[in-house]
Amino acid sequence: MIKIGYIGLGCRGFGMLKNVAECFKNVEIEAVCDLFPDRVDKASDYLVEQGRKAPFKTVDYNEVLKMDIDAVMVMTWWETHLEIAIKAMRAGKKVAVEVAGAYSVNDCFELVRTYEETGIHCMMLENCCYGKHELTVLKMAREGKLGEIVHASGGYHHYLVEEITKKGLERHHYRLRNYLSRNCDNYPTHELGPIAKILNINRGNRMMSLVSMASKTEGFYEYINQNPDGLEQLKGKKFAQGDVVTTAIKCANGETIVLTLDTALPRSYSRGFTVRGTKGSFFEDTDSFYIHEDAEKDPGLEYNWKPQWGNFDKYYEENKPDIWKKYGEPASSSGHGGMDYMVLSAFFESVEKDAVPPIDTYDTASWMVISCLSEQSIANGSAPVSIPDFTRGQWAMEREKSNLVFSLDK
Amino acid sequence: MIKIGYIGLGCRGFGMLKNVAECFKNVEIEAVCDLFPDRVDKASDYLVEQGRKAPFKTVDYNEVLKMDIDAVMVMTWWETHLEIAIKAMRAGKKVAVEVAGAYSVNDCFELVRTYEETGIHCMMLENCCYGKHELTVLKMAREGKLGEIVHASGGYHHYLVEEITKKGLERHHYRLRNYLSRNCDNYPTHELGPIAKILNINRGNRMMSLVSMASKTEGFYEYINQNPDGLEQLKGKKFAQGDVVTTAIKCANGETIVLTLDTALPRSYSRGFTVRGTKGSFFEDTDSFYIHEDAEKDPGLEYNWKPQWGNFDKYYEENKPDIWKKYGEPASSSGHGGMDYMVLSAFFESVEKDAVPPIDTYDTASWMVISCLSEQSIANGSAPVSIPDFTRGQWAMEREKSNLVFSLDK
Repeated sequence: MIKIGYIGLGCRGFGMLKNVAECFKNVEIEAVCDLFPDRVDKASDYLVEQGRKAPFKTVDYNEVLKMDIDAVMVMTWWETHLEIAIKAMRAGKKVAVEVAGAYSVNDCFELVRTYEETGIHCMMLENCCYGKHELTVLKMAREGKLGEIVHASGGYHHYLVEEITKKGLERHHYRLRNYLSRNCDNYPTHELGPIAKILNINRGNRMMSLVSMASKTEGFYEYINQNPDGLEQLKGKKFAQGDVVTTAIKCANGETIVLTLDTALPRSYSRGFTVRGTKGSFFEDTDSFYIHEDAEKDPGLEYNWKPQWGNFDKYYEENKPDIWKKYGEPASSSGHGGMDYMVLSAFFESVEKDAVPPIDTYDTASWMVISCLSEQSIANGSAPVSIPDFTRGQWAMEREKSNLVFSLDK
Repeated sequence: MIKIGYIGLGCRGFGMLKNVAECFKNVEIEAVCDLFPDRVDKASDYLVEQGRKAPFKTVDYNEVLKMDIDAVMVMTWWETHLEIAIKAMRAGKKVAVEVAGAYSVNDCFELVRTYEETGIHCMMLENCCYGKHELTVLKMAREGKLGEIVHASGGYHHYLVEEITKKGLERHHYRLRNYLSRNCDNYPTHELGPIAKILNINRGNRMMSLVSMASKTEGFYEYINQNPDGLEQLKGKKFAQGDVVTTAIKCANGETIVLTLDTALPRSYSRGFTVRGTKGSFFEDTDSFYIHEDAEKDPGLEYNWKPQWGNFDKYYEENKPDIWKKYGEPASSSGHGGMDYMVLSAFFESVEKDAVPPIDTYDTASWMVISCLSEQSIANGSAPVSIPDFTRGQWAMEREKSNLVFSLDK
C-alpha cells in the first residue's frame, strides 16, 4: 500500500480525490487537508462512504507532513504549490503537484535544489502529457514519422470567465485574484508539457529564452456588464490579466514553441496542439495529421485539407501508443478522457518503485517557471527573458531513461 | 480609358497581366517591361492575341515612367518594389505594387513622404483584403457582431519549398535569394492586411511594437536531400531563413496580432485567419464562427466544436458583404478565387476617380515595414522593436472615409 496525504480539496482537488479513491486500491489516503474545514469533512465523509478508512483531518498541512506517509498530493491554491512541495520533500515525502505556474524563478530553483539535496522528486500532474492525441504524436515523433521537429504550439484555450468570476466568488477560487492582479501566461503547462516531452526538453534540449505579449483586457468587463447579478463586487474592478497572452520560446536545438493563454473570450475548448516537422505535422484544431508522404499521393489536398479533417483516428489506429491502448482506452470515460487516471498511475508507479517520475523535478520547475518569466517579459514591453537551466548543464548529458510503465521517455 | 504601364512579368506578373487584359476593358496596357526580354515578348504577344494594341516593350522601367500613362503596376522582384514605386510617384503616375515586405524602414518613410509631396498614392495589391472570408469577417466586425476585437492572428502557411528551390532556379525567382540570405517574416501582409483593416490601423489605431522569433531551418535541407536532381547547386548551401517565424504585434488600442511565416514544412495552404472578440470569433482553420449568443443555445458546443466546423457558409448567407456578392461571387472562378479581380478593381476605381485607394500609401508602408522590423527583432534575439508612425499622428484624427465601391472603410 502507498500511503498518501492529500492537501487541497477545492473543486479540482476533490475531483481528483475521487479519482484516487475509486481507481487506486493500492493507495491509502491517510490524511485530508484544506484551509476550509467543510471541505475536509466532505472529503472524509466521501472516503468513508467509499468503504475506505477515515482519514486524519486537518486544516494545517504541516500536520500532514509529520505523518508516516510515502507521498503527498498538493492540490491547493496555485500560490502555495511550491512552498508546500518543498516542505514536503524536506520532510521526506514524495510529491505530486497539480498543474500551475510559478510566481518566482527562485521558487523553481529552490524546488530543484531541494530534490538534489533530498533525492526526492516533485512531479507535476500534467495530465495533458497523457492525452490520447499527445501520446500518439509523441510516439510518432519519436519514431521519426514527423521528421525533424521544428516548431510546436499549443495553449489553454478555455473560456473561463463565468468560472473565474461567478463561480470563482462562490468557491474562493484562486484564479479570480490572479486575474485581478497579474498579467502573464498563468497556465502554460497545457500544452507546454506534452510539447516539452516531444522536444526532449531537459534530456538533450532545453528552453533558452522567451518573449511574451498580452492583449488588452475586455472579456471580463463584457461578461460582468452582461451578467451583473451576483457580480456586484466586481463591477468597476480592474483586471490586470490580458485576454490573450502569446509567448514564444526558443530552444537550444533551434525549435520554437508558441504558447497561448486564451481564457477570457468566447470560444470552444481546445489545447491547439500543433507539432511541425520536416516530414509531417499534427493539427489538433482540425484533428488531423498532414504526413507529407501520404499527402503527396493526392496533390489536391495541398490546397484543400477539409476532406482530411478528423483523420487523426486513422493514424491512431496505426500508431496506438502502448500505454494509451492498455490504460487510457479503458479509462477514457473517466476524468478528462482518461488523462487523469494515466497521470495518477504514473505518479503512484514512481512512488511504489521509488523511481524517477516521468515528469521529474526539473520538468516541473522548467515548465512552471514560464509563468513568472512571461510576467517579466510583459512587464518589460515584451523584452526577451532568459530561461534558467535548472539542470546545471545536465540536459546536454546522457541521462538514464525511465523504465516505468508510464514513462514518457520511450 | 485608364492607361497603364506594366512592370514585372514573372510568374505572378504575367498571371495578373492576364487578369487585367481579360477583365478590364477600360484599362489599356501601354507598356510592358521586364529585365528578361523573353518575358516582355511573351506579354506583348499575349496582349496582341487578345486583340489589344501592341504595347511599348522595354527592359528599362525608367522608359515606362516617361510615358503618358495614368498608372503603373509594379510586379517586380520584392527588392525593387519601393524603388520603382517612389520613382513612379515622382513621375506623376499612380502606383499599384504587388504584395511584398520592405527591406528598410527608411524606404517606407520615403514612400509616404513621396505621397505627401506629390499627392499620388501607392496601393499594395493585397488581394487577401478582398477574400470572401476576410470581407465577411470585416463586415461582421464593423457591425459589432464579434464585440470588441481583442486579438487576431494569421499567416502565410504555404509549403513553398519546391517552388522556391527547383522552380525558383528555373524562373530566376527572387524568393530563393531571400531565403538564402535573410531571416524574417518576408511575406507578412497575408494576413496582416485584412487584420489591419479590421483593427482600423491608420484610422483610429496603429501598430506600436513587435517581437519576432524564428525557428531553425530544416525544411529546405530535407527537400534538397530528398530531391537532389536539378538542385546540385543548392546542395550544402546554407539557408538563412528560419522555417517558421512568429511575430507578435501590439497595437495602440491594446489589441495583439500574431503573424506566422510558415513556408518550409509540409502542410496544406491556409492563411490561418483568426479574429477574436468579446462576442464572437472566426477561425479559418475550421472555417467556423463561434458567436457566443448562438453557442449558448447549445452548451455542448463549448467542449465539442466539431459539429460546427464549416459553419462559415451559414454566417456568410446571413452577412454577405455587398461588394463580394456583386463582384466577388461572379469572379470566384478567376484568380485566387476572385480576390485578384476585386483588388484590381479597387485599384482601377481609385485611378479612374482620382481618389484615395482603399489600401493607401500609409497602409502599404505600415504593412510592408513589418518584414524589416521582424528581421531586426530576430537579429537582436527577439528584442522588441518600435513600429514607426508613418502618419505623423494622423491615425488618431478623424480622416475622410473612402466612398469608393471597393472601399474597405465601410
